[in-house]
Amino acid sequence: MKISARNTLKGTVKKIKEGMVNNEIMIQLAGGDEITSIITKTSCESLNLTEGTQVVAVIKASNVMVAVED
Amino acid sequence: MKISARNTLKGTVKKIKEGMVNNEIMIQLAGGDEITSIITKTSCESLNLTEGTQVVAVIKASNVMVAVED
Amino acid sequence: MKISARNTLKGTVKKIKEGMVNNEIMIQLAGGDEITSIITKTSCESLNLTEGTQVVAVIKASNVMVAVED
Amino acid sequence: MKISARNTLKGTVKKIKEGMVNNEIMIQLAGGDEITSIITKTSCESLNLTEGTQVVAVIKASNVMVAVED
Amino acid sequence: MKISARNTLKGTVKKIKEGMVNNEIMIQLAGGDEITSIITKTSCESLNLTEGTQVVAVIKASNVMVAVED
Amino acid sequence: MKISARNTLKGTVKKIKEGMVNNEIMIQLAGGDEITSIITKTSCESLNLTEGTQVVAVIKASNVMVAVED
Repeated sequence: MKISARNTLKGTVKKIKEGMVNNEIMIQLAGGDEITSIITKTSCESLNLTEGTQVVAVIKASNVMVAVED
Repeated sequence: MKISARNTLKGTVKKIKEGMVNNEIMIQLAGGDEITSIITKTSCESLNLTEGTQVVAVIKASNVMVAVED
Repeated sequence: MKISARNTLKGTVKKIKEGMVNNEIMIQLAGGDEITSIITKTSCESLNLTEGTQVVAVIKASNVMVAVED
Repeated sequence: MKISARNTLKGTVKKIKEGMVNNEIMIQLAGGDEITSIITKTSCESLNLTEGTQVVAVIKASNVMVAVED
Repeated sequence: MKISARNTLKGTVKKIKEGMVNNEIMIQLAGGDEITSIITKTSCESLNLTEGTQVVAVIKASNVMVAVED
Repeated sequence: MKISARNTLKGTVKKIKEGMVNNEIMIQLAGGDEITSIITKTSCESLNLTEGTQVVAVIKASNVMVAVED
């Protein structure tokens, strides 16, 4: 499947924080940055995510803001 | 200003594609990845974005999806 | 690629309205409903979308609201 | 009230999974598809959602991605 | 129609900036603040928005970030 | 830091409802309106939010919908 979302960043699951409905997924990117994602617990289980799983963070361009330091 | 958005990725504006209402900002991240953002033309001008501007891509965690290769 | 987004609805591109940065994609779902999507022109071209292309509308669960009739 | 969100899909609440802050609402669409939504527990209660409630899934067009099979 | 989106702010359309696919709607809130919205041109026309139209800005709680001054 | 998000509304934290992963923040705006935000518990703690904290609600323009009364 090829998706319209413009941003795909490769990384590894570093930590999963579990809630009742949503889980928080911390992803260590190859480039050194870290990305945090909130997805449903059901999706997390469906993708078999655990610490160390190779993943891709996917972000629609309209959800990316830009900031500059003052 | 300190913001609740969990993801802040430092980079440099690589290219700006202008529309009438929205502009597309391509950002080269320090780690090597590239991020594309859609913001209003007004914001783009207000932040004085041009090629080479040092910026931070800001993304709310609930807007990050996770994918795994089949 | 398997993605965390919970909602995937199969359909066919019915019409594309082109902008300078974003395109509007109208999708006829198999079940009879119609879905409209805004994606970048670049993504639209990268996916080779034209009228009649078989596609999947993908929506993160946190972006779906619920309404009831009064 | 008439809203700018382009996508409104009629269905019936199939299941509600409760969290502490957010609830997950599974909606059976008339056309056969299923949609999952994450809304606040407060909204869920305010709308009196229970299994069987007739609802409308509402989605802003800019939150719909498009994918094609490889 | 009653919607799950938690935030509804009453105001008046102050200005509309037209694009080819998306329009930018500037809304003067009753409380004095100003809100800017990006919606499709089609929605803007469908709602008959013009300067002076009484409107409600509708925002899903998961799309609101919080910031504090340093 | 100056951010591209077009909407910044000043207010005071009125109430915090805690979940396991996400917290719900109710903000009393200066103009009288109330705004509800969902952010991660981690962000809430990182910003030291408590009842009475002066905050700014930040919203990207593409996440604001417009509605009109029938």
